[in-house]
Amino acid sequence: MDYESKAVARRRKLRDSLIAAAEETIETEGLRGMKARELATKVGCAVGAIYNVFSDLDDLIFAVNALTLEQLETTLTAANTETADPQTGAIRKLTHLAVAYTDYAAANRRRWRALFDHRLAEDQEVPTWYKTNLARLFAYIEAPLRQIAPGMADADRALLARSMFSAVHGIVLIGLEEKLQSLPLTVIREQVVTMVQAMARGLATPSS
Amino acid sequence: MDYESKAVARRRKLRDSLIAAAEETIETEGLRGMKARELATKVGCAVGAIYNVFSDLDDLIFAVNALTLEQLETTLTAANTETADPQTGAIRKLTHLAVAYTDYAAANRRRWRALFDHRLAEDQEVPTWYKTNLARLFAYIEAPLRQIAPGMADADRALLARSMFSAVHGIVLIGLEEKLQSLPLTVIREQVVTMVQAMARGLATPSS
Repeated sequence: MDYESKAVARRRKLRDSLIAAAEETIETEGLRGMKARELATKVGCAVGAIYNVFSDLDDLIFAVNALTLEQLETTLTAANTETADPQTGAIRKLTHLAVAYTDYAAANRRRWRALFDHRLAEDQEVPTWYKTNLARLFAYIEAPLRQIAPGMADADRALLARSMFSAVHGIVLIGLEEKLQSLPLTVIREQVVTMVQAMARGLATPSS
Repeated sequence: MDYESKAVARRRKLRDSLIAAAEETIETEGLRGMKARELATKVGCAVGAIYNVFSDLDDLIFAVNALTLEQLETTLTAANTETADPQTGAIRKLTHLAVAYTDYAAANRRRWRALFDHRLAEDQEVPTWYKTNLARLFAYIEAPLRQIAPGMADADRALLARSMFSAVHGIVLIGLEEKLQSLPLTVIREQVVTMVQAMARGLATPSS
């Protein structure tokens, strides 16, 4: 191994260690715990070394959130079962996806919250690669919607998927919210199932 | 006016000034800006004097949030119009309530966020008077739900109202969220209308 590739390997190792340390911080303390000095202590590097592999802490948080999206995608893939009748199949699929999302959020509260609580400075943009990852998750909702509301323009379907996701997200968020008296997970699941099925049936029924 | 009532009047005046100062802070900086020292400077009192009229800053935040709930109730009352046919009337009512909520949130972003971002210490409870105010707002949603799904037990209807509110809240929250590319208010309104009407139609349609 020449000098160049050793340096690359060292950088990669530092990057991986920092991501692992940040994951642990987010899981135990949430985003508030993310401090450069503490991360540096955890992985045993100088504070300045962090900025050799990440442009800033936001960049590191995006890396962790991308792993969270990957975990989420794994649970969505598992939930995405096929059934024979396309119409009820689509409603069932949406239900499974929504329940998988609910269960993931409940089991990984701090990781899940970090996806939404991460605020960027005004001049900063969400990286394109992260947006691409997000879009891939929305596609899981768009597929069954295509069966429920066929003939809809792609842009409208994408917006509908976002609405449906947002509605489920709201139920999970308020359901787990302690200030409004948090609900048991089984009750949140029932709420999600009831509302997703009502939405899907309603979307399949033309308005009078 | 005897000494006792002068003291009462002074306390009330300090209380009102602190609430006004806290409202201004929340509207301009959000909850993060709430610091005892700065509030004391704003109203021209000693830091310690704050704790003569509020047990802690949480108590003061609840007072501001209660005013926000009052503003919200005013907009919901205005939206709560009657129509002749009870079934479509109920769907229309739910739609008006949801749009009023959306518009209030969009026009009062920081006040609205303070309702949800206010985190209590683990040993603290939400005051009963605040819960009562919240319940009064949920009653606005429960009334039309009674027409859409009659014969439902009160507890189930209360839960359904919470679900429906949460779904709308999620759409508004994600809609205004910059990180996921915030949507124009007209688009968020359309999303809310589409989803509330789908939910209401779906709830009125028995599942197959």
